[in-house]
Amino acid sequence: MNPILLLDYAAVGVFAATGALAASRKQLDIIGFLFLASVTGIGGGTFRDLILDVPVFWVVNTDYIIVCAAVAILVYFTAHLIESRYKLLLWLDAVGIAAYCVFGAYKGLVVTGSATVAVVTGMITATLGGILRDMLSAEPSVLMRPEIYVTATMVGAAVFTILYIAGVPLLAAALVAFAAAFVVRGGALKYGWSFPPYKSRPGRRPEDIA
Amino acid sequence: MNPILLLDYAAVGVFAATGALAASRKQLDIIGFLFLASVTGIGGGTFRDLILDVPVFWVVNTDYIIVCAAVAILVYFTAHLIESRYKLLLWLDAVGIAAYCVFGAYKGLVVTGSATVAVVTGMITATLGGILRDMLSAEPSVLMRPEIYVTATMVGAAVFTILYIAGVPLLAAALVAFAAAFVVRGGALKYGWSFPPYKSRPGRRPEDIA
Amino acid sequence: MNPILLLDYAAVGVFAATGALAASRKQLDIIGFLFLASVTGIGGGTFRDLILDVPVFWVVNTDYIIVCAAVAILVYFTAHLIESRYKLLLWLDAVGIAAYCVFGAYKGLVVTGSATVAVVTGMITATLGGILRDMLSAEPSVLMRPEIYVTATMVGAAVFTILYIAGVPLLAAALVAFAAAFVVRGGALKYGWSFPPYKSRPGRRPEDIA
Repeated sequence: MNPILLLDYAAVGVFAATGALAASRKQLDIIGFLFLASVTGIGGGTFRDLILDVPVFWVVNTDYIIVCAAVAILVYFTAHLIESRYKLLLWLDAVGIAAYCVFGAYKGLVVTGSATVAVVTGMITATLGGILRDMLSAEPSVLMRPEIYVTATMVGAAVFTILYIAGVPLLAAALVAFAAAFVVRGGALKYGWSFPPYKSRPGRRPEDIA
Repeated sequence: MNPILLLDYAAVGVFAATGALAASRKQLDIIGFLFLASVTGIGGGTFRDLILDVPVFWVVNTDYIIVCAAVAILVYFTAHLIESRYKLLLWLDAVGIAAYCVFGAYKGLVVTGSATVAVVTGMITATLGGILRDMLSAEPSVLMRPEIYVTATMVGAAVFTILYIAGVPLLAAALVAFAAAFVVRGGALKYGWSFPPYKSRPGRRPEDIA
Repeated sequence: MNPILLLDYAAVGVFAATGALAASRKQLDIIGFLFLASVTGIGGGTFRDLILDVPVFWVVNTDYIIVCAAVAILVYFTAHLIESRYKLLLWLDAVGIAAYCVFGAYKGLVVTGSATVAVVTGMITATLGGILRDMLSAEPSVLMRPEIYVTATMVGAAVFTILYIAGVPLLAAALVAFAAAFVVRGGALKYGWSFPPYKSRPGRRPEDIA
């Protein structure tokens, strides 16, 4: 079996697991698990395919839906065993965005041939699954957390694009880029890495403005 | 006139009415009514058509926009007569999702031939209108309510897909599936039907986690 | 250089600036500025192109991405000089929606030939950038503010569509429509113009309903 395809299933499954964990945190029923897992697992890739105007991946190959459903059911029966589900969610999310930014960049590069488009599709599609998950489960968006997040997806997408254009074989470029993105996001989670935040005062609340 | 097309107009109009009721609850102006009614009425179907890569239905036939606008104006002038607008919104939403999950499944099945895709497009597109409505009007999402919601769309989409593949005529399959979805959601609204929620403790707030 | 293309760059840049200002209000890092500026700048047009089934504009011409990035960096280094960033954000947003409703209507009209579709694509795509920005930065949506907002985009889209169908040259029709939309939204900002809100009582909270 194609190793890239296997990695893609794994990435979708990992994102689906974060959706199912969010469902467990909100104490939804089993269908809520299936729904949040599916939307989180396939959301980013759906948007990527729409932008690139290629057939949506899970319409072409419905195995991706089966992967999401299987993961949702697995998490439904095992999530109570986990001490800190939000911490696990953040770490699985880190694996997911590291994988998705590489696939997003790869598909963007293959379809359009533009390195700029590749980096942007990698970034936007890697972050979209988590945005949808947090929005639908009414959690504070992971994007707004202080430590580095979007940067990791930019690093992964850029590293892959540069290596692949430079002639590095697909699988090697993908693995190096995945590792780079995961190290950046994982370091941010473990050590609280962050850029200096914007120095000035925060915004006043819109209500304060006449 | 094609009975399926009539039902489709009715479904879009019913969803548009829930958007207009949300606008009335937020005391928006008439343009706010038109906007929320249109986005709610055509949102789910727009997404369905993008995923299936077919022309967006209201671009092809602008009568759908007229239906949304007419419903918005009607609700603007009559909503004050209604005792409990949120209750009416929930019941119209039940009619809307029951109809949309059938149309979503039908179009998914006709375009792709895959039963799995049909069920997923039925579910996602039936729920999207309400998600957009609640998000834009800053209401708690109807998805997060304790009683059964997404399940009803899965039942409707699955019943239609099974019957239609089994050779039941289109209109009969659609009506039976619509009724099944509506009974499930209506029962949930009336009797508080719910699956056992996920048993474990709810998630801790992200802020509590170092 | 094509004056319409220049105006389009300007519109994307202005919307990107509102995204960057939102990032500064939330004290995000430089990558957060790039991300919010890009999503706000290209979000509305991306959706317009998906609905019209034409290639997404920034995939075809990546200069739009460069514009967003440049604006984000500029705002990052200058936003502290500005007394009231939210006020500036609202005014730039007014320029942005006035421009985007005209481009949305123009593209909708050229691709489909339908005046109704043109007005709707103008309205929805002009408002989408701000919706995404407010949603991602967890600000109250600008749509829900009491003064006139969506109406301005409808005026701009309708004026352009009528003038252009009536044979007025493209640039003249675009400028008149832009001015009309900006006057409506600017007047609303400056003088608090608003339609009479919906007269009846506001909605009860969903929690109050058994």
